[in-house]
Parts: sequence; structure tokens; C-alpha cells
Amino acid sequence: MTEFFTRYRSEIETGLRDCLTQEPGIYRMMCYHLGFEDEAGDPCCEGGGKALRPTLCLFACEALGGNPQTALPAALAVELIHNFSLIHDDIQDDDRERRHRPTVWAIWGKPQAINAGDAMHTLAVQVLLRLSQAGVEPQRVLEAIRILTRATLEMIEGQHLDLGYEGRLGVTVNDYLDMVSRKTEALITCALELGALLSCDDPETIRAFRRCGEHLGLAFQFRDDLLGIWGDVEHTGKPTANDILRRKKTLPVVYALEQATGAVREELIQHYGGRMDQQVAHAVISILERLDAYTYVQRMAEMECQRALKALDEVPLPSWAEREMEKLTDFLLSRER
Amino acid sequence: MTEFFTRYRSEIETGLRDCLTQEPGIYRMMCYHLGFEDEAGDPCCEGGGKALRPTLCLFACEALGGNPQTALPAALAVELIHNFSLIHDDIQDDDRERRHRPTVWAIWGKPQAINAGDAMHTLAVQVLLRLSQAGVEPQRVLEAIRILTRATLEMIEGQHLDLGYEGRLGVTVNDYLDMVSRKTEALITCALELGALLSCDDPETIRAFRRCGEHLGLAFQFRDDLLGIWGDVEHTGKPTANDILRRKKTLPVVYALEQATGAVREELIQHYGGRMDQQVAHAVISILERLDAYTYVQRMAEMECQRALKALDEVPLPSWAEREMEKLTDFLLSRER
Repeated sequence: MTEFFTRYRSEIETGLRDCLTQEPGIYRMMCYHLGFEDEAGDPCCEGGGKALRPTLCLFACEALGGNPQTALPAALAVELIHNFSLIHDDIQDDDRERRHRPTVWAIWGKPQAINAGDAMHTLAVQVLLRLSQAGVEPQRVLEAIRILTRATLEMIEGQHLDLGYEGRLGVTVNDYLDMVSRKTEALITCALELGALLSCDDPETIRAFRRCGEHLGLAFQFRDDLLGIWGDVEHTGKPTANDILRRKKTLPVVYALEQATGAVREELIQHYGGRMDQQVAHAVISILERLDAYTYVQRMAEMECQRALKALDEVPLPSWAEREMEKLTDFLLSRER
Repeated sequence: MTEFFTRYRSEIETGLRDCLTQEPGIYRMMCYHLGFEDEAGDPCCEGGGKALRPTLCLFACEALGGNPQTALPAALAVELIHNFSLIHDDIQDDDRERRHRPTVWAIWGKPQAINAGDAMHTLAVQVLLRLSQAGVEPQRVLEAIRILTRATLEMIEGQHLDLGYEGRLGVTVNDYLDMVSRKTEALITCALELGALLSCDDPETIRAFRRCGEHLGLAFQFRDDLLGIWGDVEHTGKPTANDILRRKKTLPVVYALEQATGAVREELIQHYGGRMDQQVAHAVISILERLDAYTYVQRMAEMECQRALKALDEVPLPSWAEREMEKLTDFLLSRER
């Protein structure tokens, strides 16, 4: 993993652990999900994610000359929102594995996993309130809460659309972009916006970080879509072609549905209309490859990364921050997990 | 229904509708749940609940001389938290009916119902932020958010305990009280506390309303427990003996498990250890009746109502408010739904 993600790793991990020191039961499920404990409640340290969102938040704060410690509650809040959504997503998608470990519901059952996600959702707002203790003035704390809740709501709206698309064939690239702008982009944007808000007063600069986040969010999702079809289980922790098997309307598929004509289009529609299994999934993938969907999506991701860098053109950043941004975009375009 | 609940009914309903005017899809599920629309999205006005919590919030505000309009965002937030928990509870309990209508998940499926609950959870915090627009100073808005999130977290912890108790026999009255103090009491207390916070500066008065809420919350739950066993489906919308069939450890059952000795205790344990059906449930109920569990629980509810009224003894209230409080406790002790 690129150096970008190691910069604040220990602060983020310590901060998250501190949120979960309350009595057992429901908190144990959350510790497990975040990779701090195993099923039995014994300490372990595997399976945690990249912590992309909180890293972006602290990075924006420090790049603008702020003390990342001030933005830590915001970074943790964003990560808790992201992870509450993962716990609920796994229930919704019936996924039994995440990051090579059983999902929360696969161990504790769906009813209790719903509670674990709900609790993590509330914790996020509670943690954000700690900004006051970090010396942030009340008006700005309220603004941070407004930004976080708006992004959370957008994320849930996106998840609603995404599930709805599974049963539909007529999903266009525009429908897809509307969905991912909420489901993925909103929270990544929120992370950068909060980091900027907590170290600077200039609305133009905060807006620039927002725009940067919008493009990074799309790039992240496009690459994610590629991994959901062509990714290696060894790296992603999910079976190859997973998104095809679940009829997810990710960008390669939506692009192919728009591009295909004649017999190819008929074949694609037929595949999605009938029973879906490994064999059908492979037939779908071979159509996607014939239509160069992989290349198209990778190019789209590259374009979004360029736009993300460009969004910060007018913001005077220290050279270390510029280098880090480039490392980050390189990582987003080549990541295998 | 008692007059207590009609006092603010239209403000609450209008306010809730205003929260849900956003684009369709996920908001339609929420409108349906709140009884504003039918399955097809056509207007209807049946199936809404009593709105106990928001009514308490506005009542506390007005009783202390405040303008209930100021506290409206808080009242709506509490009602949205309560209803998000109902949407998720119905999924967790596999309940297909609530208030004589199909539950959200029974219509839209569990994955989308999880989203509807999640969105309503976030909306609650968003609505609370509107206190700023009502002229409440930032520091007090933050305090309101702190109170709401703490109560929400307690409510979810209580739900976690409640589900865990279903599979256990050794639940004591103390375990039960710990569970309901979170699951039910926390949000009812929060409603009164927020109402007081938004019309008064005296910490003692706010604490008095808190204490009142704690006792009302218990009284409400105790009566609920009676209705969950002896209630009439015509009134409650749930089958008689429903809580016994689900092995819920409500107060009558927990009391009976503590009181029963010898052969009666053996019989009770045997009933809970094996297959549970209507016949077994009726056998359990006849044991509860022999042990006078109904009377015990009703007396407990009466005691909590007296304590609730006593908690406000030191607070000078206008006479209309005193009369309303008495109407409310009378209702809580005799309600059939």
C-alpha cells in the first residue's frame, strides 16, 4: 500500500479504538468489523481497510497548514459512517465474507448486525461532537455536522438506487453516474471538505477540495467497478466476476449495454434476463472485453484523477502535499484491492 | 385517544411531511411507514402512531413557558429516531404487520427497508440542525444533538440486549430493567429533556423533566408488556400472546420466572425450552395469571406514573399543564393500544 495511507494510520486506528471502549456486546461486533478483535473478542490486527476517507480528511487539514489532530474527530466520524454502511451492505447483499473474514451478520446473525450498523451510525455523530473539545467553535461544529449528515443521506440514497438497479436493464451511464455520485462520491467529498473546513476559512479553498473529492470519488468507484469484475480474489477478498453474478449495474456493464448493438446487444440482454451463474458471467465478461469496456472505464478513472489534481491548481499547497496527491492518484488507478 | 395527543397533532404531522418532500424512492418508503401514503404512493391518512414522544417534547417546552414552535425540530427528530427503530425492529423480528398494515420490509423487501431506516436515522439529525433557523444559539443546538445521539445509542444498545434475551432463560428483573431503561426509557426521557432545554435555562428544571421522563418511560413499557401478552389484536394490531410466542423477556415473564418455585417453575422452564406455539403460549399465560403477574406489572406501572408526577413537584407549572400530565398518566395506565 502506498505511503499515503501510512501517514495517519496510527492516529486513526487509536482514535477508532477509543470510540469503542464501551461495554461489550454491541461494541464487540463493531471492534470485530474494524479488524481490532477476532470473533471471540481477542485482540487481532488484521482485516482493517485502507482508511481512505479519514486519511483524506486529515490530509486536507494538514495540507492547508492545520493541525491534523483538530480534524481527527471528523476523520473518525467519516470512517464510522463508511463502516456502518459496509455492515449494512453485507446484510443487503447477503455477503458472507469481507476482507477474507466472515462478515458481522455471518457470525452474529442479521438482526444483531443491523444493530451494530445502527450503533456505528450514531457513534459517528457523537464522535464529531468532540470537535468542540478540540477547540473548534460551535458554529463550525454545526457546519461539520451539516456536511456529514448531508453526505450520509446521499450515500444511503445511492445505496437505494444501486439495489434498485440490480433488477433493471435500462440503466444508462447517466443513471449510473447519478447513483455513484451519491453512493461513493458524497462521502469521499465530505472527507476532504471537512478537513479543509477545519483548517481554513476561505470558502473558495473549501470548494476546491470539494471538487477534488468529487473527482477522486468517481475515480475510486470506476477502479472499484473494474476490480468487481476482473479483480483477483486473492487481493479483493471477493470472487472474480462477483458484480456480474449479482447483476450490479457497474460502469463496464452500463457502458456495454449502451454500446452494444444488434446480436451482441441481444445476447447481453438475454444473459441478464435469465439465470445467472459462473458460465453466464464469463460470457458477459467476454462481451465486455470485446467492447473494450475495461479500457473505457480505466480511461474514465484516469480522466477523473487528472481533474482531481486540477481542482487544487489554484490552492497553494506545500510541495509534500502535491507529491502525496500524485501518489494517491497513482494508487487509485493501479490498485488491485 | 386522550386529548393530550391532539394538542400538537397537526404541527407534528405537517412537520414530518415537510421532512419527506424530497425525490421519490427511498422517501416513499418513509412516507408509507408514517402513514402519509399507501403502498402505491397515493395520499392516505391512517396508520400513524400516537406521536407520544414529539408530543412530550412540545408539551415540556410549552409547560415551561416556551413557544412550542421553537422545539418543533427536536420533537420531529425524536419521532424520526423512534420510527427508524420501528422500521428496523420489524425486520429484526420478522414482523409482517404494524398498525394493521404490512410493514415496510413486507412490501419493499428487507434490503430496501434497511435503507429506509438508515435514511430516517440521518434525517433526524438533519432536522435537529434546523433549531438554528428557529433562533436557538449554536451551543444549545450542539447540546440538543448530544442529548439526541446519546439517547439513540442507548436505544440501540437496549434493542441489542432485548434480542439477546430472547434466547436466554436466566434474565432477572434487574436485567430487564437495564434493558428497558435503554430501549424505551432513553428516548422518552430525551423528548422531555429536549423540550425543557429549549425553553429554559435552569439545570434543575431540566433534570426534573428528565426524571419525569424516566418514570413515564418505564410506565409506558410496563403497560406495553401487558398489551404484548393480553392485548386484543383489534386494538394493538398484533396477535394476542405475541410476545410469548417470540419468547420476549418482558416484565410479566421475567417476574414469573423469578417468583415461580417447584413444579410451576419446572413447567415454565420446560415451556420455554421446547417448541413454542399457541397452545404452549396459553399454558404460559395461565401460569402468569396464577402468579398474578398482570396485577404486579400494572401496579409497577401505576407506581412509575406517581413517581413521574412527583418528579415535577418542585417545578411551578401552569394548571393546564398539570391537568394534561394527569390525563397523560391516566391514559398510559389504561391504554389498550
